[in-house]
Amino acid sequence: MELHPALGNLAGLVGTWRGRGHGDYPSIEAFSYLEEVTFGHVGKPFLAYTQKTRGAETNAPLHAESGFIRPGADGHAEWVIAQPTGIVEVLVAERELDFYSASITLSPTAKSVTRVRRALVLDGDTLSYEVHMAAVDEPMQWHLSARLHRDT
Amino acid sequence: MELHPALGNLAGLVGTWRGRGHGDYPSIEAFSYLEEVTFGHVGKPFLAYTQKTRGAETNAPLHAESGFIRPGADGHAEWVIAQPTGIVEVLVAERELDFYSASITLSPTAKSVTRVRRALVLDGDTLSYEVHMAAVDEPMQWHLSARLHRDT
Repeated sequence: MELHPALGNLAGLVGTWRGRGHGDYPSIEAFSYLEEVTFGHVGKPFLAYTQKTRGAETNAPLHAESGFIRPGADGHAEWVIAQPTGIVEVLVAERELDFYSASITLSPTAKSVTRVRRALVLDGDTLSYEVHMAAVDEPMQWHLSARLHRDT
Repeated sequence: MELHPALGNLAGLVGTWRGRGHGDYPSIEAFSYLEEVTFGHVGKPFLAYTQKTRGAETNAPLHAESGFIRPGADGHAEWVIAQPTGIVEVLVAERELDFYSASITLSPTAKSVTRVRRALVLDGDTLSYEVHMAAVDEPMQWHLSARLHRDT
């Protein structure tokens, strides 16, 4: 199926990505993880996003999230994400694939997250990202880094 | 893998569901669709939700959405959903599987949706639902009905 031309630079994300990451935050212990990310398409001007991680040592399921990325106005792509922790994010790219939360909304029993930056760098078949986060009364700070490779 | 006991009545949703639905709204033409819904789990106290529909006559992809359902406080389950239209929903069950939007948040270029009710009825291997919606300046009204069967 052909990619929708409106996807622009988002088209480079299509595929299944696997790799490793590590994370830390004042409220938790530092950890390492194995990750699988997919960006799928059905010929429409958006990509379906799924993500899941496992503990690098334990292989036990850790996090998961899902959502969609779509072209926005003036080249500012939009990314909507739902998380099993009861959090939904709406992010907008300031430039290229560097996304900042426009809004974060919580379910009644979710832990507080107030601000997120998801900075993706796409280099051929390598996708790296950092996540910075302000949560549980902590100021905005680095939370996750990972480096993934496209499954070809 | 065993279901997490905190899932309670949400456990009955686990599986892949297929069937037909129809929809209408003042801003669109009435339509019929084929649907596939999955509620998956990894042994944790939440279910991963995916949904996609195709035109009943055309078989072309129509809608998709994804998210998570989790137990909330006092038996009021919580459901977070992301949509390729740039919409994220946080819903809370008033009773059983009758969910009302607690918040709906839009990406900058999304069409306006202000209120949603997603009323699910689970009867063994049959899952029926109705969606009511207030959107694009229309008052709250019926939008979708479908009847799905568990793929066994």
